[in-house]
Amino acid sequence: MAGACPSRAVLEHVTSKWGSLTLAALSPEPARFGELRRAIGGISEKMLSQTLKSLESDGLVDRRVQSTQPLHVDYALTPSGETVARAVKALVLAVYDVMPEVLRTAESA
Amino acid sequence: MAGACPSRAVLEHVTSKWGSLTLAALSPEPARFGELRRAIGGISEKMLSQTLKSLESDGLVDRRVQSTQPLHVDYALTPSGETVARAVKALVLAVYDVMPEVLRTAESA
Repeated sequence: MAGACPSRAVLEHVTSKWGSLTLAALSPEPARFGELRRAIGGISEKMLSQTLKSLESDGLVDRRVQSTQPLHVDYALTPSGETVARAVKALVLAVYDVMPEVLRTAESA
Repeated sequence: MAGACPSRAVLEHVTSKWGSLTLAALSPEPARFGELRRAIGGISEKMLSQTLKSLESDGLVDRRVQSTQPLHVDYALTPSGETVARAVKALVLAVYDVMPEVLRTAESA
């Protein structure tokens, strides 16, 4: 957990508000920009584009341009991206699991 | 992934820059404030205190005051906190796993 460890930056990208949801939305299938935007409630075009760029520069997401007319672009997890996305989805499920208890705590506070 | 789902707020707390590291640092043993501060590189007193408060109000962390002289305070995961911390630690390990590949991608960019 040293501040200078390079894994801290990657952990921040994949656990950022939008990073985690974007990784989860790319699993198990590649998706196009518009599909991702619709899947992830509340994300703006700008934030989705920034999030995809940071995941791409970490090597977790591949931006694939198909040379069709019109151009088709989709986003796919790399093998590293799959590994991380699996763990992110497990975390999302763990949060769902504890939500009844969390909501009870919030009510009694 | 609807924006209004209450699990989104909890997911943001547990995946926040400091939330994920704090949960990981509280597992497997309860810890005192100063111990946490030393374990989590770069966290300020203010941020650690805010992070613990938000995890506490979600019911993931228990603040335990022992009536000794001087007072001892420690922080422990609740059962819900254990569930989430386990998933957070698995995610941290997944990120460690892919770091060699991430660093290769960064070098070749």
